[in-house]
Amino acid sequence: MKIVQIELGQRSYPIYIGASVISDPALYRKHIKGRQVLVVTNDTVAPLYLDKVLQQLEGYQAVSVILPDGEQFKNLEVLNQIFDACLLNKFGRNATLIALGGGVTGDMGGFAAACYQRGIPFIQVPTTLLAQVDSSVGGKTGVNHPLGKNMIGAFYQPQCVLADTLVLGSLDKRQLSAGLAEVIKYGLIRDLEFFTWLEVNIQHVLDKDQEALAYVIERSCRNKAEVVEEDETEASVRATLNLGHTFGHAIETGAGYGEILHGEAVAIGLCLAADLSRRMGWLANNDVDRIIMLCKRANLPVIPPKNLTSDQLIQLMSVDKKNMDGEIRLILLKNIGCATLPIGVDPKLLHSTLENYNH
Amino acid sequence: MKIVQIELGQRSYPIYIGASVISDPALYRKHIKGRQVLVVTNDTVAPLYLDKVLQQLEGYQAVSVILPDGEQFKNLEVLNQIFDACLLNKFGRNATLIALGGGVTGDMGGFAAACYQRGIPFIQVPTTLLAQVDSSVGGKTGVNHPLGKNMIGAFYQPQCVLADTLVLGSLDKRQLSAGLAEVIKYGLIRDLEFFTWLEVNIQHVLDKDQEALAYVIERSCRNKAEVVEEDETEASVRATLNLGHTFGHAIETGAGYGEILHGEAVAIGLCLAADLSRRMGWLANNDVDRIIMLCKRANLPVIPPKNLTSDQLIQLMSVDKKNMDGEIRLILLKNIGCATLPIGVDPKLLHSTLENYNH
Repeated sequence: MKIVQIELGQRSYPIYIGASVISDPALYRKHIKGRQVLVVTNDTVAPLYLDKVLQQLEGYQAVSVILPDGEQFKNLEVLNQIFDACLLNKFGRNATLIALGGGVTGDMGGFAAACYQRGIPFIQVPTTLLAQVDSSVGGKTGVNHPLGKNMIGAFYQPQCVLADTLVLGSLDKRQLSAGLAEVIKYGLIRDLEFFTWLEVNIQHVLDKDQEALAYVIERSCRNKAEVVEEDETEASVRATLNLGHTFGHAIETGAGYGEILHGEAVAIGLCLAADLSRRMGWLANNDVDRIIMLCKRANLPVIPPKNLTSDQLIQLMSVDKKNMDGEIRLILLKNIGCATLPIGVDPKLLHSTLENYNH
Repeated sequence: MKIVQIELGQRSYPIYIGASVISDPALYRKHIKGRQVLVVTNDTVAPLYLDKVLQQLEGYQAVSVILPDGEQFKNLEVLNQIFDACLLNKFGRNATLIALGGGVTGDMGGFAAACYQRGIPFIQVPTTLLAQVDSSVGGKTGVNHPLGKNMIGAFYQPQCVLADTLVLGSLDKRQLSAGLAEVIKYGLIRDLEFFTWLEVNIQHVLDKDQEALAYVIERSCRNKAEVVEEDETEASVRATLNLGHTFGHAIETGAGYGEILHGEAVAIGLCLAADLSRRMGWLANNDVDRIIMLCKRANLPVIPPKNLTSDQLIQLMSVDKKNMDGEIRLILLKNIGCATLPIGVDPKLLHSTLENYNH
């Protein structure tokens, strides 16, 4: 078992990475303070792992709530089902919430924990590669609004994260690839060596080699941890983690939540950001090609869905959280391994990038 | 103008108290960072003060959203109207939210600010005595759930508070009295001198003497500030601010939100807590009488509505946030001016207190 410690003062916590970490009752006991536990999961994950988690919680008053699976259910209405379960079971402020599932479950479970009685402890048990390498670190929680993704939420840190590599055995290929988009992103924004490692080893990861998976999760979490430790609330450098995400969120919203996976939208966003970085005169043609090639080898899409026009995408990008006083601001690349802070871009260049891929 | 500074490290902020502070554009300019401003208010306050506030915001992109007035509208659905307004106007993370209204508006505006894009700055402009002396300090924000009051929320501090004593001129007598319940509470939990001052001067306050009002607001805010500065997230002594509130919340929920004012329910709760404190052997009969008498002179109710049975109230009290692992815990009084931390109470004594007032 590997442990990545996230250092955030009083809000520090460990990420346990390895085979079968979700089946170790000692890890739960160490991080649960009270007697009441609510396991929040979804209807895809519940049949696979809910019983296994509940078995580790003998002696606790453990209750579960099973949400419908999918980004389209990440909203205030479904969130309320978690509050219902807490209140119907008379859960107090020392109850612990365990979020068992992918990114959507983690975001909603974490946000519910942040808001229930103004904050109760929670434990993340991410069951997708995306959630293990992304939402494990940084405490971003929240739900979507019909007019924008992740627009309602909180910064809220878990007590610990259990990232089980064996659990990824049940993950389908499309979901595994979606996770790799965020992994590739860490290489792009700050870790050229990791990007090069991925170019060499991507097939081992796709084959779910346990050692390769554990390495990818650990290195991704460490990269993200270093960024978040420096800037917990995204005042500056944390924004670089959003490389590809402004495009990605617009693509997700435009396509309708649930039509395209978050990681897939991010992969398209990475390629668009690379193209725009080239047009800014920063990234070499060859580097853009390497990025597109690695995404393709990871079985990720690299161009936006045909039915979304450039104008639609720009309209959707205009509500991004990084924008200031209405101006679209983006993270771009100076080089592979070196991202910019959010900057305003020439609308003509942005339009050229989007048009280029729409034909 | 008096200024009470709330010292919470990086989250410190001033409360400006006095006549016409809401009409001073310099106070707004000092605390608004970006250009976008959303004024959240309700349909009672809007006709009285919205224009006045908007007049001070010349040069900003100021937008307003008018919510229905009343505790029964303090829920996730109405909260969403604030997010709609933010997103329809493409408000970014540096937009400022101004909450103009009573406690409900402040709680909802503050919670919306806490959650929108995971947190934007906000300014409180409380227009009731209750909001000026209570929600001005401490950063408690949130909404109700059908199964419990204030069950969904966040701790979130404003940039500043504008507590205008002239605004109280338009407050009806019942609302003014409701505010006095929280004022009396500060005397009870930690300030015997203030309690005695109130016994002497209550009529001046009811007559809306400007000096008496400013004194009451300042002393209440200072009392609350000292408690909150010591314990921001209610790990210990902050819980004493909940004297009377466990009873009060149960009475509000049982009567149906909006039927009885929060302050009225708290006044009943103060009297029930006093009675129970006497049964615990702490408070003298004479002190209980002084408390009931002061509440009556402030035109506040002192016994629960007849239609609520003791069993109903106990059931409703069982979901209070102070409870641990299902046990009801209350703040009680050792003396006037000295409250206990939350303690479990003998269910028989609790029952006796409730039965006593139901006959």
